[in-house]
Amino acid sequence: MAGIPVVERTADLGTWAQEQRCAGRLVGLVPTMGALHDGHLSLVSRAAAECDVVVLTVFVNPLQFGPGEDLAAYPRALEADVEAAARSGASIAFAPPVEEMFPGEVATNVHVAGLSEVLDGRFRPTHFDGVATVVAKLFAIVGAARAYFGEKDFQQLAIVRRMAGDLSFPVEVVGCPVVRARDGLALSSRNAYLTPEERAAAPVLLRALRSGASAVAAGERSPAAVTDLVGSIVEAEPLAALDAADVVDAATLRTPAVLAGELRILVAARFGRARLIDNVGISTPP
Amino acid sequence: MAGIPVVERTADLGTWAQEQRCAGRLVGLVPTMGALHDGHLSLVSRAAAECDVVVLTVFVNPLQFGPGEDLAAYPRALEADVEAAARSGASIAFAPPVEEMFPGEVATNVHVAGLSEVLDGRFRPTHFDGVATVVAKLFAIVGAARAYFGEKDFQQLAIVRRMAGDLSFPVEVVGCPVVRARDGLALSSRNAYLTPEERAAAPVLLRALRSGASAVAAGERSPAAVTDLVGSIVEAEPLAALDAADVVDAATLRTPAVLAGELRILVAARFGRARLIDNVGISTPP
Repeated sequence: MAGIPVVERTADLGTWAQEQRCAGRLVGLVPTMGALHDGHLSLVSRAAAECDVVVLTVFVNPLQFGPGEDLAAYPRALEADVEAAARSGASIAFAPPVEEMFPGEVATNVHVAGLSEVLDGRFRPTHFDGVATVVAKLFAIVGAARAYFGEKDFQQLAIVRRMAGDLSFPVEVVGCPVVRARDGLALSSRNAYLTPEERAAAPVLLRALRSGASAVAAGERSPAAVTDLVGSIVEAEPLAALDAADVVDAATLRTPAVLAGELRILVAARFGRARLIDNVGISTPP
Repeated sequence: MAGIPVVERTADLGTWAQEQRCAGRLVGLVPTMGALHDGHLSLVSRAAAECDVVVLTVFVNPLQFGPGEDLAAYPRALEADVEAAARSGASIAFAPPVEEMFPGEVATNVHVAGLSEVLDGRFRPTHFDGVATVVAKLFAIVGAARAYFGEKDFQQLAIVRRMAGDLSFPVEVVGCPVVRARDGLALSSRNAYLTPEERAAAPVLLRALRSGASAVAAGERSPAAVTDLVGSIVEAEPLAALDAADVVDAATLRTPAVLAGELRILVAARFGRARLIDNVGISTPP
């Protein structure tokens, strides 16, 4: 297995990407915070299938962690990440030190109104600004034609897509399906925080989401009825502490008065020190 | 005089700029709101001298006008602008309709903290976010190596420079000296609003700024003494209504307790329906 280059400097990545574009190659971008699992690798594989070259970025972005969140504890495994990404088709890895991305105080903030305040934005008021700001930087540096994000972070995907369009970045933001363990738990770097007991309990999230989706499929049109059902299933699990259950319009992320069209059911819950999120899509018949 | 192409579509400009970059040409960018005067044309000439190709953009950006400001009245003269810019060395003009830049509601906002709240930010609370957001879009579309802004809008220049660095746009932001009429009035598209009497009175701004600079040169180190002097000279002119006189550190735009280093003296005043701004630099001996 041949290695791929790992660059730490913004200017070096920019030069490389410019050479690729000017050689007529379609540049794909997979932004991550590292600690790669098969969900991330599915993004790399998809990018490799659709683009000529693929940039994997590994950066634990301090802007998107709130006070008291797990910035210091967040798992880091750069060498293994680069190897796994190379096997999945990445062409180059960008792993900048914090001081390369933020050499001084960060004065500039990118905010996506509306989409950032709802759902997880109620619990993490600065999180999505941190995401939007750092992803704008990556778009500015790389000039990618396509960028790949997982639907596991459904709200993040919507915000990044909106930011890219609003700021005229010439990039197509591609959302990719959630990758799950056999028992249904969505893969997440934060699953590493789970004790064996918590890990065994965590698939309750998907069970709850599926129950909600089944209710909609069976004709339930009341958002409160669906979220009460989802929430009650999670709350019945002693190791889970429910943060929120929501059902929203998949485009606006707003809860409609009556469920109709393309919907997303989302859940957030804590299992010990791990805060996990998951979601499923469901649409009503036209 | 051969004409230059005028494009209206973001994608067309992006394709053109990419071709230029890939042909090894240095792309310069001169963002304007049109109604070009010799100040704008000095930016185009400078860009043409330093770059291989020059993009002039003409877009009256609604985001940077507050309620009750002069968005509708702002002078527009696209044909003359393009001709003049071509004579000064522009290679292409980008004159997008509003709906090309903002096809829907604008959810994304770029804010530069600190620099945006001071000085004119006290009077125009959303103005600099509108500037930063639209300039970020232009940087994303064009991928210019250099972008030229006038020092007449000194705070705007500082904010754009900071935004470009913070968001990792690979562009050098170049500030260019104020261009003035013979009697000292800084050229501005808004000078067109002045009656002959107001036009005759308006050079009081530069006289006031120069008196402030002379006081600093003569040893004055009290910010209040300098701004009182500048303000009193403007207020002695019956056709002028002073908004603000300030003296700030040229890098931070903050007023120091004791004047030292690289300073900027700024003034804002209304003459009838025209709100005019101007500034001069002065440094204390090391």
